Amino acid sequence: MTRPLHIGILGATGAVGKQMRICLYEQQIPMASLHLYASQQSVGKELDGIVIEEATLDAFKQLDVLFGAVDTDVVQAYETMIQESGVLFIDNSSYYRLAKDVPLVVPQINGADALDTPRNIIANPNCSTIIAMMAIAPIHRLSPVQQLIACTYQAVSGAGLNGIAELQQQIKAEQTGEQLRVNVFPTQIAYNVIPWIGSEKEQGSTSEELKMRDEGRKILHHASMKVQCTCVRVPVYRSHSIALSISTREELSIEQVQNALQHAQGVQYTPSYPTPLQTSDQDLVFVGRLRKDEVLENGWSLFVCGDQIRKGAASNAVEILGYLIQQDAIGIVRK
Amino acid sequence: MTRPLHIGILGATGAVGKQMRICLYEQQIPMASLHLYASQQSVGKELDGIVIEEATLDAFKQLDVLFGAVDTDVVQAYETMIQESGVLFIDNSSYYRLAKDVPLVVPQINGADALDTPRNIIANPNCSTIIAMMAIAPIHRLSPVQQLIACTYQAVSGAGLNGIAELQQQIKAEQTGEQLRVNVFPTQIAYNVIPWIGSEKEQGSTSEELKMRDEGRKILHHASMKVQCTCVRVPVYRSHSIALSISTREELSIEQVQNALQHAQGVQYTPSYPTPLQTSDQDLVFVGRLRKDEVLENGWSLFVCGDQIRKGAASNAVEILGYLIQQDAIGIVRK
Repeated sequence: MTRPLHIGILGATGAVGKQMRICLYEQQIPMASLHLYASQQSVGKELDGIVIEEATLDAFKQLDVLFGAVDTDVVQAYETMIQESGVLFIDNSSYYRLAKDVPLVVPQINGADALDTPRNIIANPNCSTIIAMMAIAPIHRLSPVQQLIACTYQAVSGAGLNGIAELQQQIKAEQTGEQLRVNVFPTQIAYNVIPWIGSEKEQGSTSEELKMRDEGRKILHHASMKVQCTCVRVPVYRSHSIALSISTREELSIEQVQNALQHAQGVQYTPSYPTPLQTSDQDLVFVGRLRKDEVLENGWSLFVCGDQIRKGAASNAVEILGYLIQQDAIGIVRK
Repeated sequence: MTRPLHIGILGATGAVGKQMRICLYEQQIPMASLHLYASQQSVGKELDGIVIEEATLDAFKQLDVLFGAVDTDVVQAYETMIQESGVLFIDNSSYYRLAKDVPLVVPQINGADALDTPRNIIANPNCSTIIAMMAIAPIHRLSPVQQLIACTYQAVSGAGLNGIAELQQQIKAEQTGEQLRVNVFPTQIAYNVIPWIGSEKEQGSTSEELKMRDEGRKILHHASMKVQCTCVRVPVYRSHSIALSISTREELSIEQVQNALQHAQGVQYTPSYPTPLQTSDQDLVFVGRLRKDEVLENGWSLFVCGDQIRKGAASNAVEILGYLIQQDAIGIVRK
């Protein structure tokens, strides 16, 4: 049994940071203490009765595990401090995800990768990638997935509390006639969809779209998987949805695929269809609309929904710690 | 020159019927008279100064052209009367679309098909299909499109004025606390997406999804095109969006594809991306996010937006008549 742990959350006031705290209790992680860190102006303020502390080297040295719920630039700013402190860092940003010496982990898929952490860092994958891979991995275990075409329907929570507030403000503005504000998303998201998430990368794809390819390959240990992704923001609050077309190396029967999805840990298979609203604020990834894909060879079409803040971020990060505790591996990992 | 025509609209009080009337004026169709028909309870009432008439055999006999902006069941109810009247019927329902002796026409793609109308009927295609085909046809003319994977983001206007009202009511209910009503769509559409449009058909696909395949093949005269489609309703008012992955028989350069889209009639190519909000209430179909598709051989990925009520329905129907007038073919068609 792992002893109770000293745990910290960097970025505790954000959507993911707040959810991580809830997940720590829900997943019954044994805690000796919980420390919340946020930006300088929040230090000293209370969040649900817990005083927000200053993030310092001495503070981190007292911790066993630090969760990162901040953007890449903030992780970079704290990088040296985290490294020197020797804390196990479970990071939700994209900063370390593709680093060779940092595992990128979805516990239900590649949990064992979390046992090899030369840098004391474990990366939490991109939200859409986690949710898509939760549906793909059970099929991939039957026969390798060779091709993947994904079209996303991504919730505004992917842009954090500011993304949620922006949709709320725009809906209200449209009702009351007040000025509609566009700050977080590149154009109005209320009553709209925006096929552009992240920054422009190779050949016209966005950073968000290439995460599905590059992180997906790393999680599945399958570098030759061909991936095409179109990421689209939709006016939904929390759950991401993804339409998937995949092909497997061998031909599978629909019973085999259904059976794999029905028995996959963390997956809820439905013979009907899931919607983001019905799947919000739950840790399960919902998979429905399973059909033969008429275009791809040995192809399948699926529709997947999963809560972006939970399984797409906070729950998965805390599940990584849960996996290490279950494996009694905190001691191995913590250098 | 075609003489001014006697024109009728069946279903004149609906979203598409109202838009047809606007399009008749916008497209400067020469009219001798315009007659509006709607359900029994509307007869005698005025719509923008025009009295709604009763749809009778004698009334239809006085017309040159009748536009149908009603559902299949209403078309069926009037079928004999329309046939007996000898009027040219341009129908927006799905009733005749796949009939061998009824052309299914998008004027910019297969206008000439409208010249062969043995039954005096021309069918207007499904909204998503028109919008997708407007983007695909210019590429298909360079090299046949062999494979098509489409994921739609469909506006509530696809369910008519009641669909628009349902989204409005749900948004208002969420603000005011009044009862949220679900009548038109199978579940709440506000702040949600619903991956289910139409009724269940073969192998788990919906009627709406099979229209993309069956109507797409008919419009392009390309029965062997492989099509997989996922249709999803989104909380957008008017414009449909569609993410497309296509493959062509021969390899094309990006310059060839761009050039074809830039010069395609009725298409607005953008090197950036279109959104439904920015493309609403316009007749053009907007195409952006052109990228090589990494999964399909000779593959391309595109994102398309087009107004569902206009190019997806009313404008296209009126453009069919415009094409016949331009070809001086009303006399040929009208038996």
